[in-house]
Amino acid sequence: MKLKLFVDRMSQPSRALLIFCKANGIDFEEVKIDLAKKEHLSPDYKAINPMKQVPAIEVDGEFRLFESHAILRFLATAFPGIAEHWYPADLFKRAQIDSILDWHHSNLRRGSVGLILNTTFAPFFGLPLNPEAAAEAEKILSFSLAKIETFWLNNGQFLLGNSEPSIADLSLVCEIMQLEVLDEKLHKQILDPHEKVRIWVEDTRKAVNPHFDEIHTTLFQTKEILKKMRSNTGSGETKTN
Amino acid sequence: MKLKLFVDRMSQPSRALLIFCKANGIDFEEVKIDLAKKEHLSPDYKAINPMKQVPAIEVDGEFRLFESHAILRFLATAFPGIAEHWYPADLFKRAQIDSILDWHHSNLRRGSVGLILNTTFAPFFGLPLNPEAAAEAEKILSFSLAKIETFWLNNGQFLLGNSEPSIADLSLVCEIMQLEVLDEKLHKQILDPHEKVRIWVEDTRKAVNPHFDEIHTTLFQTKEILKKMRSNTGSGETKTN
Repeated sequence: MKLKLFVDRMSQPSRALLIFCKANGIDFEEVKIDLAKKEHLSPDYKAINPMKQVPAIEVDGEFRLFESHAILRFLATAFPGIAEHWYPADLFKRAQIDSILDWHHSNLRRGSVGLILNTTFAPFFGLPLNPEAAAEAEKILSFSLAKIETFWLNNGQFLLGNSEPSIADLSLVCEIMQLEVLDEKLHKQILDPHEKVRIWVEDTRKAVNPHFDEIHTTLFQTKEILKKMRSNTGSGETKTN
Repeated sequence: MKLKLFVDRMSQPSRALLIFCKANGIDFEEVKIDLAKKEHLSPDYKAINPMKQVPAIEVDGEFRLFESHAILRFLATAFPGIAEHWYPADLFKRAQIDSILDWHHSNLRRGSVGLILNTTFAPFFGLPLNPEAAAEAEKILSFSLAKIETFWLNNGQFLLGNSEPSIADLSLVCEIMQLEVLDEKLHKQILDPHEKVRIWVEDTRKAVNPHFDEIHTTLFQTKEILKKMRSNTGSGETKTN
């Protein structure tokens, strides 16, 4: 199957797909949809994904799919030779991975996206920073990290007590990595109470390296740029003017 | 397999599970977790679902699962004799249903839950009504209904142009039914512009009746109670004191 990934490496679900394909030897063409240049809003891209978001995929020039969890499930089952631990055929094990992926949307992801937007990225989209929305998002995020730590990471190295990562580990860890763009003090405040989460992020990184580091290079470059901007404005917040 | 459903019929994902089981002849025991009595917060229920939400299931007294989409996928694949249209074995068709289910979380569901909470149910949880959050949620909801209408219902009777419903139809339609608790004027304002959506809701209802109507009885009783409360206070809003 000829696979195209429509992605931006600054998008956490885009990175999860890129790492999954590289770690599993799936051949693909990476088509950059530059969010900063609003390429996701173009009519051409709307034909790929009517929801105007990244990531999306195209298979053999005709089958199109969006929503990163649906794509990860599809890649793990429709492409040959994917190791069982990513998305087991056993229906009981698979259901538990689905449960984490579904939970992710309204919990970890909602908290993370809301906090990053309202403390850091809003000005780049011409929006005001919103401290109230940021505080609400931080609550959801911290609650989610605590749940991951006390429930899903309770018994082992990876989620569900597994000894190897699943697509849920990859999706959630890429989300947590996005927090690197936050002001360092805030990042520390959020992650410091969750040692198990930090160890799990590192274990997931190691399990899919060198691809993890390679795909996260853009994020770390952006982190450095934001850091310089913050030290120039002398503020913990990111300002664009 | 011996199946227990932990549900409250006032919860839209709970109703989707109940209807799915009844429409497919899956035997189950219904265990009511009364949200109004805060039974979902009890230590006993926390052992079933650490996220303290309904629905959840238990299979053969040991396997436990939460998140309604994960449960629907599991029931559709692990129980024998479920008609193919609910969650097709074909990986391309299955992926498209997964795409809708994943999209649902941050779109239709987020809009619907936010609007209902902030216009209607907040006082029952001791929270203030929040017109600003309600307006934001209404925007997300209306955007989502428009996307369903123009994209997923573009070619046929059910989502993806299918001639029979999938678990995605059931989940999304049960979500839309929850809007029945809104003030009638607001309900009309939201649903009136989306004729295709209204026809699809009715088609889905017919496809799984009499179970659809039976499982929605509690919702319609609540709707009547709220209507009386509103006419007593002489206001479009629901007030508890």
